[in-house]
Formats: sequence, C-alpha cells, structure tokens
Amino acid sequence: MSDRSLLVVVLAAGEGTRMASRLPKVLHKVAGRTMLHHVLEAARAAGATRTAVVVGPGREDVAAEAQRIVPDAQVFVQAERLGTAHAVLAARAALEQGADDVLVLYADTPLIRSETLARLRAPLAEGAAVAALGFVPDDPTGYGRLVTVGDDLLAIREEKDATATEKAIRLCNAGLMALAGDKALSLLERIGNANAKGEYYLTDAVEVARADGFSAVAAEAEADEVAGVNSRIQLAEAEAILQKRLRLGAMAGGATLVAPETVFFSADTKLGRDVIVEPNVVFGPGVSVGDDVVIHAFCHLEGATLEVGVSIGPYARLRPGTRLETGVRIGNFVETKAAHIEQGAKVNHLSYVGDAHVGANANLGAGTITCNYDGFSKYRTEIGAGAFIGVNSALVAPVHVGDGAYVGTGAVITADVPKDALAIARSRQVVKEGWASDFRAKRAKKKE
Amino acid sequence: MSDRSLLVVVLAAGEGTRMASRLPKVLHKVAGRTMLHHVLEAARAAGATRTAVVVGPGREDVAAEAQRIVPDAQVFVQAERLGTAHAVLAARAALEQGADDVLVLYADTPLIRSETLARLRAPLAEGAAVAALGFVPDDPTGYGRLVTVGDDLLAIREEKDATATEKAIRLCNAGLMALAGDKALSLLERIGNANAKGEYYLTDAVEVARADGFSAVAAEAEADEVAGVNSRIQLAEAEAILQKRLRLGAMAGGATLVAPETVFFSADTKLGRDVIVEPNVVFGPGVSVGDDVVIHAFCHLEGATLEVGVSIGPYARLRPGTRLETGVRIGNFVETKAAHIEQGAKVNHLSYVGDAHVGANANLGAGTITCNYDGFSKYRTEIGAGAFIGVNSALVAPVHVGDGAYVGTGAVITADVPKDALAIARSRQVVKEGWASDFRAKRAKKKE
Amino acid sequence: MSDRSLLVVVLAAGEGTRMASRLPKVLHKVAGRTMLHHVLEAARAAGATRTAVVVGPGREDVAAEAQRIVPDAQVFVQAERLGTAHAVLAARAALEQGADDVLVLYADTPLIRSETLARLRAPLAEGAAVAALGFVPDDPTGYGRLVTVGDDLLAIREEKDATATEKAIRLCNAGLMALAGDKALSLLERIGNANAKGEYYLTDAVEVARADGFSAVAAEAEADEVAGVNSRIQLAEAEAILQKRLRLGAMAGGATLVAPETVFFSADTKLGRDVIVEPNVVFGPGVSVGDDVVIHAFCHLEGATLEVGVSIGPYARLRPGTRLETGVRIGNFVETKAAHIEQGAKVNHLSYVGDAHVGANANLGAGTITCNYDGFSKYRTEIGAGAFIGVNSALVAPVHVGDGAYVGTGAVITADVPKDALAIARSRQVVKEGWASDFRAKRAKKKE
Repeated sequence: MSDRSLLVVVLAAGEGTRMASRLPKVLHKVAGRTMLHHVLEAARAAGATRTAVVVGPGREDVAAEAQRIVPDAQVFVQAERLGTAHAVLAARAALEQGADDVLVLYADTPLIRSETLARLRAPLAEGAAVAALGFVPDDPTGYGRLVTVGDDLLAIREEKDATATEKAIRLCNAGLMALAGDKALSLLERIGNANAKGEYYLTDAVEVARADGFSAVAAEAEADEVAGVNSRIQLAEAEAILQKRLRLGAMAGGATLVAPETVFFSADTKLGRDVIVEPNVVFGPGVSVGDDVVIHAFCHLEGATLEVGVSIGPYARLRPGTRLETGVRIGNFVETKAAHIEQGAKVNHLSYVGDAHVGANANLGAGTITCNYDGFSKYRTEIGAGAFIGVNSALVAPVHVGDGAYVGTGAVITADVPKDALAIARSRQVVKEGWASDFRAKRAKKKE
Repeated sequence: MSDRSLLVVVLAAGEGTRMASRLPKVLHKVAGRTMLHHVLEAARAAGATRTAVVVGPGREDVAAEAQRIVPDAQVFVQAERLGTAHAVLAARAALEQGADDVLVLYADTPLIRSETLARLRAPLAEGAAVAALGFVPDDPTGYGRLVTVGDDLLAIREEKDATATEKAIRLCNAGLMALAGDKALSLLERIGNANAKGEYYLTDAVEVARADGFSAVAAEAEADEVAGVNSRIQLAEAEAILQKRLRLGAMAGGATLVAPETVFFSADTKLGRDVIVEPNVVFGPGVSVGDDVVIHAFCHLEGATLEVGVSIGPYARLRPGTRLETGVRIGNFVETKAAHIEQGAKVNHLSYVGDAHVGANANLGAGTITCNYDGFSKYRTEIGAGAFIGVNSALVAPVHVGDGAYVGTGAVITADVPKDALAIARSRQVVKEGWASDFRAKRAKKKE
Repeated sequence: MSDRSLLVVVLAAGEGTRMASRLPKVLHKVAGRTMLHHVLEAARAAGATRTAVVVGPGREDVAAEAQRIVPDAQVFVQAERLGTAHAVLAARAALEQGADDVLVLYADTPLIRSETLARLRAPLAEGAAVAALGFVPDDPTGYGRLVTVGDDLLAIREEKDATATEKAIRLCNAGLMALAGDKALSLLERIGNANAKGEYYLTDAVEVARADGFSAVAAEAEADEVAGVNSRIQLAEAEAILQKRLRLGAMAGGATLVAPETVFFSADTKLGRDVIVEPNVVFGPGVSVGDDVVIHAFCHLEGATLEVGVSIGPYARLRPGTRLETGVRIGNFVETKAAHIEQGAKVNHLSYVGDAHVGANANLGAGTITCNYDGFSKYRTEIGAGAFIGVNSALVAPVHVGDGAYVGTGAVITADVPKDALAIARSRQVVKEGWASDFRAKRAKKKE
C-alpha cells in the first residue's frame, strides 16, 4: 500500500427522497452493512489516513454511523445543496489540514472496490492533479463522457454538450474523483456555477486543472461498482450484485453452495474450506465458520463462531455470542444466544440455549430450555461436560449442572446438580382406567 | 370510472387437460388466488356491473368459486365445445338483459390488468362496435395478426391465411374483446363455422361488424398480461410474472425487500412504509403490515394484521386471526392462530399461541403452549396485561391469567390465576448423588 | 433396450485440485448424489452389463462409492496420469473380458442422459468401430471440432491444429466415446503420444480406426449434458441445470410448484399427481410423495414416504424412516424420524416423534416429545389408534400408549397406558396471591 497520506471525503448529504423512507438513504443496508459503512470500509482498505464525511443538516444519525465505523472521522454539514464541488468544500477544514492525496467518494455507491480506489489514486503519485473514475455502461445515454487522448483526460462532457463524436465515447463519468492534496482546495475554489442549475460541479475540476497546465487522467471501474442507489429497487439490485460477489468468493475459497442464489451473506462472513451450505441460509453480520462445517438448509446465523466440523440445522438459529467448538451438533428448531458450547456437545431438537456454557460432549434433549430471564434480569446456566439433560427440561438460571450429571425428563431445575448426580422433579404417573372412553361418551352426548 | 353499464362474460369452460389435474384449470391458484378470482377482480376494478361466467358441464366447483367472489354472478353451462363465440352465446340470457358495454374475458389469463380492460372498453363509448385486444409477443409465429389502418381494425387474420405483409405485423390477437352492448348479440349470432374445425370463432365478430358498416378498433396490452395458462409450467410462469409485479410495487411503496426474488406475496398483501422484509418470506392471503415492521427471514404469514413497529421471526408462523398490536415481538419457532396480542407483548421462542388474547406488555417464556383443544372443542386463553408466563408452561383453556400475574416455570395451569398472583405447579427437585456414574457403569457393563 | 452386452468404463481419476477440497472431485454431490453415482446410474439405464471404474492411486473412497452403487463394478487404478487413452487402458483386464460395446464415460460429467448414451452406442450395432459424442457450445473456442462428412466422422481436430474452415465447425468434442468391443483394445493400444504433452488421447481412436478402414461416426448431445465439473462454481452450475430438469419433470407430471426455482429435488424424488409444493422446500434422497399431497413452505424431507392426501408444514422436517399414511397431517416445527404414522393422525406443532409408531387418527398435542435416547441406546414408542396426547408431554421409551387413551397435559409417561385410560403426571396448581406485585416491588427497589 502507498505510504502517501490520503484524505477521503465521503459525500453523504443526499436526501434520498425516492427511497420513501424516514431513514436517511445512506443508512439503508446492503449485505448487512449500511451503505456508508461499505464506502468507509473501501476507503480504509484503500489506505485512508483521514476521513471526512459531509452530511445534510440535522443528520446526527449519519454522523454517528460514520464515527461508529471510523471513530476519528470528521463530520461536516452541507447546509445548502449547491452541487458536488460545494459539498466537498463543506469539508474545507479537512482539506486545509492537507494530505498527499484526496479521494472524493459517494456514500450511495456502496459497491466500489478498494482495488479500484487504489487504481484511481495511483496517478496522483506520478504527478497528476486530477483523476476521474469512468465506467462503461450498457447504455451510455444520459451520462457524462470522459474525453481522453491516450492517458490524458481532456474533459468530462455532459451529454447535452457533447458532439456526435463525443457521444460515441463509451467511457462515462462515475463521479468519484482523486485530487492532488496540494492543489485540491485551489481547484475546488475556482469551480464556478455558470450552468443551467447554478450548481458547483466537481467534474469541472478537470477543466480548471488543465487550464493551470496540470494533468488529468481517467481510471476505469466495472459498471457494477459505481451503481448509485436511489430507490429501494436499486437497493435490491445492489444487494444482488454484492451477494453474487460474495457467493463466488465463497465457492472459489472452497465452500460448496448447493444453490448459491439462495444463500445470503454479510459482507464480513468468513467461511473455511470444505464447508457445505445447503439451500436457504442467511448469514447476518459477524459469522465465522471453520473447515468442514455443514450448514443445513434454512439456517439463520448472526454473531456466531463455528469451529471445525460443526454441523447445524436444518432450521438452526444462532444468535450473537454463540460459539460452537469442534464437532458440535445443533439440530432443528434450536436457538442459541450468548452460548459457548464445547466440543462434541449436542443440542438436537426444539431447544433454547441462551446465556449458557455447555461442556464437552454434553447432550441436551429435545425441548431443553434455559430460563435466563425472570422479567427483570438475565442469568447464566452452566452445564458440565458429559452431562445429559432429559427431554422437556427447564434449567432456571442461575444454575449449575455438574459434569456427568443427569437431569430427568420434564424437570424444572432450580438448584445446582452435583457432578455425576441425577436430578429429578417430576410427578408420579397416575392412571385412571376407562376414563377416556367415559369422557368420549360424555362429549358425544353433549354434542347431540 | 365510466358510468356506462358493463356486462363481463368470463369464459371458464376450458378443460385444461395439459394441467394433468383433477382440479379444473381455472381453480388453480396464482399469488394465493384462483385464476378465475384474478379475472373477476380485474373485471370488477374495470367497472363490471354484471358478471356472467361460462363453465363446462358438471363444473359446480367453478360456479361456486365465481359466486364466492361475485355473489350475483350468473353462471351458464356450455354443453358442447364449439368455439369461443359459441361459448359467449351460452350466456345469451345475460346478453339479452342488455348493457352498454360487453367484455369477453378468459379465466385462464389471470394477469390481465384492469387498466388494460378499461382501455379496451373505452372505444365503445365513442361508437365502436368491436374492440379487440392485441399484444406484441417476442415471436409472433402461430398467432393471429391484428390488421389495422390508423385506428381502424380491418381484420384478425389467422397466420395460415396471412399474406407475407400481414405476417410481418407484430401486433397479435390476445383473444379478449369488447363489444357494444346493443350489437353484441346480433354480431355473435351471425358468426359462422365455415372453417377447418367447424367452430364458431369470436374473432369473426370484427368481420361481421365491419360488414354491417360498424367500426372495429384495437387496443394493446403488455405481452405478459395476456399469457394464457395451459400447463403447470405456464402456471409457474404466471406466478413469477405476478410476483415480480407485486415485489416492484412493494418496493416502490417504501418497503425494503432484501432479496425480492425470495419473497412471495398474495395478491391482497398490504405493506406499510419502512417495512423491512428479509429473505425467504411467504405471505398467504389476508395479510396487512403496518409501518416500520421488520419481518425476519423464513416467516410465513396468513390472515394476519401487524401494526406499527411489530417485529417477527425469523421462523415465525402467523396463522389466520392473528392480530399483533404496536411493538409486539414474535420470535423464532412461534406459531400464532386466532390470537390478539396487545402492544408491546413478547412471545420470543418455541411457542404456540392459539385462540388467545394476550394483554399489553405480557411476556410469554420459551415453550409456552396454549392447550386450546381437548379432542372435541376449542377453548380460549386469556392472559392479562404485564403477565409473565414461565418457560415450558401449558395453559389449559378455558383459562384466565390475571394482569401482572406470574406463572412458574413448567406449570400446567388449569385454573384461573388472579391478578398479581403467582401460580406454580411443579414437583420438588430431588437429587440422587452418584446415580449417573452408577448408571453409566451399568450400561457400559451391559454393552460388553 | 439393446440385447448387446455393454462394458462401461468410467474415468474417475481426475484430481480436481480446482475444487479446493479434501474430498475427491467425483464424490461431490449434485441433487443429493455423488457425480460418480449419476454417471453410473446413466450407464445402468443405458444398458451397462459390466462396469469398470478407473480411479487415482489411494482413492479407496471413490472405489467404495462405485461399488456401493454397482456392487460388481471392477475398480482399476491409474498409477500415472498419461492421458485419457492411458486411463481407459488401466481397465485392460475388463476390456480383455470382452463385450459387444464399450462406452467411455467421465465421472465429472454428471448430467449426461442415458438416452444420449443409447444414441451414442447405437451405431456400433450397425458396424461402426468408434462413435464420438459432440455438442454445440455457445462459444466453440478452445474445443476440439468433430470433422464430419455426412454420417462419417473424419477426425477430431484440436483447435490449434484446425484450418479456418474446420474452426467454423460448431460441433465440438465432448470426450465421451463408444467403441466396438471387438476392436477397442486393439485401437487403444495403437494410440501414440507423439504430441506436445506426451499424452495418450482417446480422441485419436478415430484416426486409428479409420486407418484400419473402419467407420467412425458422431452423435450429438445437448451442451448442458456434457458440462464437466472442475470447480465449486461449475458444481453449482451443474446443480442448477439438474434442478431445472427435475422441476420441469415434476410439473409435467402434474405437480404444482408455486415457485419452481425455490424447490430443490434429489435425483430420486418421486411426486404424485396434484401435489402442491409451496416455495422453499428441500427434498433429500429417498422421498416418495403420493397424489394430492400438500407440502407447505419451508419443509425439509429425506427418506420419507408420504401417502395420498398427506399435508405437511410449513416448517416440517421429515427424516429417514418416516412413513405418513393417507391423510396424515404434520404441522409446523415438527420433526419425525423412523416414525410410522397411520392414517389421519395429526402432529401439528412443535414436536419430535422419533423411533415411533402412531396409530390411526391419534392426535399428538403441541410440544409432544418422544424420549427415544437415554444417552446409550434408542427405544421405541407406540401410540395407539385414536389416542390423544396432551400438550408438552414426554413419552419415555420404551413405552406403549393404548388405543383411545388420553395423556394429560405436561405428563412424563414412563409406564404403559392401558387402552382407553387416562394417564396424568402433574403437580397440583398452587396460587400465591399478591406474590407478583411483591416480587416486582422488591426487584424495583433492588434496581434503585
């Protein structure tokens, strides 16, 4: 990575009215992360040393998300909306602090790759004053064109001003731009607003730079990296593109996705080798999966770590704080939360294991439930290694079941169970002969 | 909407042998409704004042479905299958009653839009005798062509009779037709059967009308509106087209569908603004979702009302008669049925809440089950506001748990619990030290 | 089917390094079967009378899978990897035993149809010495071309050796080949390795045969039948192609798949007529479904038999050994395993029924669990016809509930229940008035 300092200015002040949402556009999520988070992450991976985020007035929520991801991000408010150059100048104080390179990104283009940003930024190190990012859309109609000769970017021409020759250019303007840090402020300040809308356009930096005799160049991105998100339909399209990337990456890394189009990853999902993922699995944020894990159909994971050889599902729901050690087996209709389950333990059916620690090779029968909440607080359950918990048992936390202990079927366990002991809490079975035939006769009579 | 009276004649007598089904073709469902229902609904929305449905002999089930949707629909039986004009004439009695406009629709084209029907019908108000519906298929081979000059429809030409010039026409015959009410019967009666199959074709109405000096015109539909369904594969294609429409509509209305292609709506699903729907959600008929609701992955809803800010799933199954008030939380592996759950209440895990009323802010622990059925009848459970139901409890209906009451873990509640009381029904825990190690030793010996 | 004897040689020695897997490539699965299994099954259906499988050194797992499918398959080891003809000659002993026809197949082309193999083999009966299988890819670049004149196959030309005219040929070499049994060994032995890689190529059999004056011909396959699988991405593509075939077959056979793209079949799934499959259903191996069955959304089936009119799900999980007789109803969050459930019985909610027999019209309440495992062995539960099992009951196997018996809510049943009796095992409900308000007051104080 370059050892040049890099200031990234992220424009996040768009109103996003086409989203028809109270949530600011850039806080909508793609692959489990806000769009703003994606862009900040790409900036970080491209070597950002300082980050400035330009938000709309009153958008504390956007500022908070930016600083959640990049704690020392500087936040600036663009009070009026007078064009992209104007928006960048809202971060004037950051520009004045200086940096070797400046990158201008948009919080609503979440699919941009850090490799592309590195490529966009690279010419600055070789003396360029401005580098603009282009892409080749299926249909260039409506886009500005990047007019180039060899490596030189001569101009960014709006379609309405383009000659027929220029309209035939297929490389279009993506909007993202790199500026030499020592020239950025001067270039931006000289951009004018003598245009139909009376706005200050960042694209004019090319012209200003060239008028100064500086060089401007173009870099190219894949079309799907620079797709802006302005509506829920475009949000879904961005999600689809990113999911496709994540699925291909998972398969290339040695995971089998039986039906890739039905598996939904978060941007941070980690999968080992020889992992098998059956159809219809959803990975929320924070999941790490070791080698040789099998994830059966209809699983939902979030904030969970699965070590080697774990098998879960179908219909397993792992919630944050779940850690499954080697060879653990979680079966169907089972929910875990803040649960550390040691190697070889099994929770096969219809259980809830929350705020719990389960020792190695323990076996929790169907219908085992940890009662971790009394309406006011949460408590922990400890189950020892090799313990056997009978069917339909309730473990009322805080409680400890010792190593090797047995808990009888249908028990409500409210006191600790010693190592190797049996705990039962059950009423004696009573049989009333003939009761059922009498009951049926009475009910049948009543219905007459 | 027009104030002209409108008789809609729906042809529903097709045998549908390619469906390989005992169920009549037009009773197969798309987006949770029978195909016949879709067509009747489009007719209603286009202003139908009277409805006639032509069915095959012995098809009481089709007649019943028609009258379930349109109670005063007239049903006619087409005894022999002698062509589309013959089928319409089966509804002669309805035609004789008169109407300003007549529309002829097909019960196996469920995707037709009411807006298109309104457009098809409109020329009648301006004096046209016949209006035929056309569409532009990807490949016109095999379709009849609409031969037009300006606004005039000169003829509907079968492909085998078409000249090379006519074959180049891309506007093809969809079959749907509008007829002036005062001329319809006269036109239909003069259609002959001097053709290869000896059948009476509705398309010939154009020729008959023009021979009388009346005007005929064409209207155009999207190709995907007039796709007929003759096989299960075409049924699946129609479902896919309709789902796509419904998904785009939901997103345009301000709902986020993370993976639109995995969400299945019914035709009557209502979604509020800022609703989030995760992947793999199925909406059966009769679901209404308020603003700011989150529907996690793998949910299944039918006949349910979700008010503002409700959160359900993953793996929630809401059955008919479920009403969730503001802020209610339904978690994983939970089933509700005929359950009114007041604001802020929670049912988070592994529960069945049926024939029940749950007060505001009540908390039902994991494994709570309402026992609403004794093998003969169903009974109701009442749970008061702020009540706390312990894990693995069974509430044997009819039963009432008072406001603020506690039910202990593992209880079977058969009698009412007063307000603010605690009810327990549990055996004392007994511990047998060393039992488990003895048991293991014995079992190990037995295995030798 | 031909009465000529057929030796099939399956080449299964590829290393599959691009799979990034410890599992040999040909043991990866498509539609629930290993790729090798698919190819062996196609060979069987095409009339294989003897089977030889060529594996890499140390690949006992591949040999075992071959003999699991075809118990008398001969397994040969290809010690060095010197080309396809060399691989076939590893099975020299099988070739020496003689057969009318010889087919050479690849274990990594799992989509090949038996009908295509029959067509490839057919010319041998009419005197051809060699038949090569061709296909027409979207883009022929990189493939060998089949140079034909009329029915005669003159040569298989590698692209680098092809003339411009030959490069225009669209019929490309799929690699699969049929050889006359009486000539196969002689042809193979005379194939040389005078080429860039110094390998022995099976394709050269054409040239050798023609040099002897024998005839060679070409047969054609669909492009999607001969797609080789070399990576996880190609594995997913093969799965998608096969699923599409299976879905179309199911619909053509009279099943409704509401959303075909969300239903995943195994190669051996059997569906009756008027079956309805809702979205998101996964069929593992060994499932047979009778007429008029409804499979609701989110079901997972494996090794299960569903008789006429059964209804399952949503969220039903049927495991191997499940047999559901006519009209059985399995509801949501229910797991069955090795369970024979007789006609009309119901298990509607949140249950585990394993190692069990359930009589006709029995009703198992929500939360019913069979305790079939004590940590060492598994035991069976018998439930009689018409029995009614109360909610949250645990049946501790081995145990028998008689016909028509009732089991009370929340019981742990450890002893047999006679016919028509009632069994209860429950603590009396005790109410402590005011306890909850005291508790809340104390907890509120503690929090201060």
